[in-house]
Amino acid sequence: MKAEIFSIGTELLLGNVVDTNSQFIAEQCAALGIQVYHMQTLGDNPTRVREAFQEALSHVDMIIATGGLGPTTDDLTKEMAMEAMGQKGAIHEETYARLKEQFNYEEDRIQNNIKQAIFPSNAYVLKNDRGTAPGCILLQDGKYIVLLPGPPHEMIGVFEEFKSWYLKSFKQDHLYSKTLRFTGIGESDLNALMKDLFEQRNPSIAPYAKPQEVTLRVTAFSHDAQDGLALVNEGVRQVQERVGQYIYGFDNDTLARTIFRFLQQQNLSIATAESLTGGAVAAELVEVEGISEVYKGSIVAYQDEVKERFLHVSRETLEKHSAVSRECLEEMLIGICKATSAKIGLATTGYAGPTGDVGHVWIGVRINGVNQVKELQIHGQRTQIIRRTVRQVLTLLWNVLKSVSRETIE
Amino acid sequence: MKAEIFSIGTELLLGNVVDTNSQFIAEQCAALGIQVYHMQTLGDNPTRVREAFQEALSHVDMIIATGGLGPTTDDLTKEMAMEAMGQKGAIHEETYARLKEQFNYEEDRIQNNIKQAIFPSNAYVLKNDRGTAPGCILLQDGKYIVLLPGPPHEMIGVFEEFKSWYLKSFKQDHLYSKTLRFTGIGESDLNALMKDLFEQRNPSIAPYAKPQEVTLRVTAFSHDAQDGLALVNEGVRQVQERVGQYIYGFDNDTLARTIFRFLQQQNLSIATAESLTGGAVAAELVEVEGISEVYKGSIVAYQDEVKERFLHVSRETLEKHSAVSRECLEEMLIGICKATSAKIGLATTGYAGPTGDVGHVWIGVRINGVNQVKELQIHGQRTQIIRRTVRQVLTLLWNVLKSVSRETIE
Repeated sequence: MKAEIFSIGTELLLGNVVDTNSQFIAEQCAALGIQVYHMQTLGDNPTRVREAFQEALSHVDMIIATGGLGPTTDDLTKEMAMEAMGQKGAIHEETYARLKEQFNYEEDRIQNNIKQAIFPSNAYVLKNDRGTAPGCILLQDGKYIVLLPGPPHEMIGVFEEFKSWYLKSFKQDHLYSKTLRFTGIGESDLNALMKDLFEQRNPSIAPYAKPQEVTLRVTAFSHDAQDGLALVNEGVRQVQERVGQYIYGFDNDTLARTIFRFLQQQNLSIATAESLTGGAVAAELVEVEGISEVYKGSIVAYQDEVKERFLHVSRETLEKHSAVSRECLEEMLIGICKATSAKIGLATTGYAGPTGDVGHVWIGVRINGVNQVKELQIHGQRTQIIRRTVRQVLTLLWNVLKSVSRETIE
Repeated sequence: MKAEIFSIGTELLLGNVVDTNSQFIAEQCAALGIQVYHMQTLGDNPTRVREAFQEALSHVDMIIATGGLGPTTDDLTKEMAMEAMGQKGAIHEETYARLKEQFNYEEDRIQNNIKQAIFPSNAYVLKNDRGTAPGCILLQDGKYIVLLPGPPHEMIGVFEEFKSWYLKSFKQDHLYSKTLRFTGIGESDLNALMKDLFEQRNPSIAPYAKPQEVTLRVTAFSHDAQDGLALVNEGVRQVQERVGQYIYGFDNDTLARTIFRFLQQQNLSIATAESLTGGAVAAELVEVEGISEVYKGSIVAYQDEVKERFLHVSRETLEKHSAVSRECLEEMLIGICKATSAKIGLATTGYAGPTGDVGHVWIGVRINGVNQVKELQIHGQRTQIIRRTVRQVLTLLWNVLKSVSRETIE
C-alpha cells in the first residue's frame, strides 16, 4: 500500500513547533509495510488542504493526516477531507455521547465542540482516550484518508486504534514485533555494534529513534501467530547475544517501571534526596502505577537549610566542601535512609546553572548501608542536565540492583 | 516573497530521523519575512525530486531544500535542481581549491567528492565551514532554489551565509509577532470568546496549542519596524481587552517563570508538599534558572508515614479522613510552611490511580497563614492527572499572588 503523510497547521509553517508526528507515523508505516512515498506540511488554509487531499488521492492509496481536528474555526482538516471525497457528515451518536460526558453535559461547551462528533456515515471512528477530538478513517473507491489529532500524545494513542484496524483489514500476514529498551549505552555505539544485523529481513532489526531513549525494534511478518512470535524471539535472541547487558526492558517498559517491578518482588522500599534534580527523579518514579507500594517519597533539598534540617547534612560539610561534593552526597544518602527508614536511598547534587561549575554532578545509591557514588560531567542546558542526571541515577540504581541478590539486602 | 521548504532523504520517509531542519528554516523565514506556504519531504528519487522542483517553481519565488548534497550516487538534489532550471554546471574554482585542502590533496578522495565543487556559472555558492558539501543559490527568471546540506549543524552554519545574502539582496516586509500565554481557560473556551477576531488580518490573531499550553499568536507584516511593532501591540491590546485576566505571560514565558519573577520581586520564599504530584511541581519549578533564590524545596510525602514525620499530618486525620481530604491537605500546608519556614506553601493530594476515586484531587496554597484550597475532579490517565494537577496548583498560586499585594504579605 502506497501512502502520503500530511501535517496540517499554520504553526508548523511558521516554525513554532517541530513536527514529530510525521516521523512517528513514517516509522510505524515502515513496520506495517505501508510504503510512505511523500510527506507534506500545509497551513490551515481550507482550499489548499482540500486540493492537496484531491491531488494525493489521485496517486496514493492512503493519506494519513495529523492536525486540524480541534474545535476551532481554523480546524478544518476533516471538513476538507470530506469535501475532497465528496462526502457529507452527520452526528455520530456514540461520539456525541462521549462528548457530552467529557464536557459534563454543559450545553454551550458541547456546542463549541460539536463538530468533533460529525462524520460521514461510512467512516470508521478512531477513539481518542487522551483528548476530545477523535480520529477517523474516511473511505471511498478503495482509497483511505486517515485523520489523527495533532497533539503527539493524543496522536500516538489514536494511531494504535488505526493500527489494529489496518492489521485486521489488510494483513493476512500479521505483524509481530518487540521493542528492546537500552540504558547505559549511546545510540551510535549501539548501532555500530549492531550494524550488520540491520540488513537482515524477517525478523528485521532496526533502530527506533526516541527522545531520551535508546531502543531497537524486532519485526516479523507471518500468517501464523506461533511462527511470527518464534521469528521475533529469534531476533530478540540475536540482540541479547550481542548487547544483552544494556537491555533493561521491552515494549512499553520504562526504566522506572522495571525498577519498580524488581523492588516489588524483593519487597524493598526506596526514598530519594534530590538537590540538582529538584523532584524530577521522584516525578519519574511516581509515573509508575502502584509505586506507592515501595516508594516512600523524596526530600527535595534545594536550599542548604533544607539539606541540614531534613537530611542532617552537617554545616561543616556544606561550608568546607559545598553542597556539590562527594561528602554532601554521602550525607544526603545516609540522611534520607535514616529519615524515611527506606532500605534504599537515592541522591543527586550538582550545578545545573546559571552559576557554579555547570554540569558537574554527583549521584549515588545507598543499599545495605553502603554508598555507591558516581561523579559526572554532563553537557547541555539546564533542562538536559536535569533530565540526563535523572537517567544516570536510575541507571546506576538498576545496575546496583542487578548486582545484589535478595539475600544480601537486609 | 513566497517560499517552499523541501527536505530530501529516504531516511526521512522511513522515519529513521526527525526532521528538525524544516522547523528551523521555517522559523528563520518567518523572521525574515519570507512566507513559507508549503513544506514537503521527498525520498532520494531523482525523477520525483526534479518534478517537485519544477512544480514548485511554477507557484513560489523560492525553494529552500536540505539534504542530498553529499558525494554519494544517491545525493542528487543539486543535479535535479539544475535540470529543473535547465542549467549546466562546471567546476567552481574557489570551491575546488577548498576541496583539495579539505582532502589533503589526495587525488582519489578529491575525485570522490568532485561533484561538490560543480555549480552553474551564475550560482551563488554558500560556504560550509562545518562539512565538505557547500550550499548554493541557483537563480533563473527571478526565481531561486536555495540548496543547504542535510546535517543540522552544517545546515545552520550555511543558513547564516544564505541569510546575509538574502538581507543584502532584498528589502522586504518583515514579520513581527508576539505569543500570548494563558492559564485558567481551556483552548475551546478561549477560541469561542475570540472567534470573530481570528478573521482579522494585519495584525492577525490565531490560536496555536502547545501540549499543556493555551496560547494565541499576534502577527503583523510591515516594512517598517516601528510600524510593525505598533500593529502587534494593537493586536495584543485587542486580546487583553477581552481575555486579559487569563494571560500570564508572553513569548517564551512559562507559568513557573512568571511566578518566579513575582516571588523574586516581592522577596517571597516558597516550599511545596506533594503527595499526588510526587515531585512534579518541584520539577517544574526547578526548570527555572535562579529559582533557588526563592524556592526552598519540597517534601514529596508519597506514603502516609512521610506525611506524619515531615509534615506533622496527624494520624487521626489520616485515619478519619484519609490522605485525600481537605483536612489532610490543610495540615500539609501548615506543615510545609512550619518545617521550611517558607512564606508560601503549596500542596497536592489525590488519587492518580490505579485504586481510589481516580482523578479526585485536592490542591492548596498557604499564604499569610491562610489556606486557599480547591477540590478537583480531573479526567485522563495517571500521567495527565499528575500534569494537570501541577498546572492547576500553579494557576491557583498565580491567581492568589495577583490578588494579594506586597504589603499584605508578611
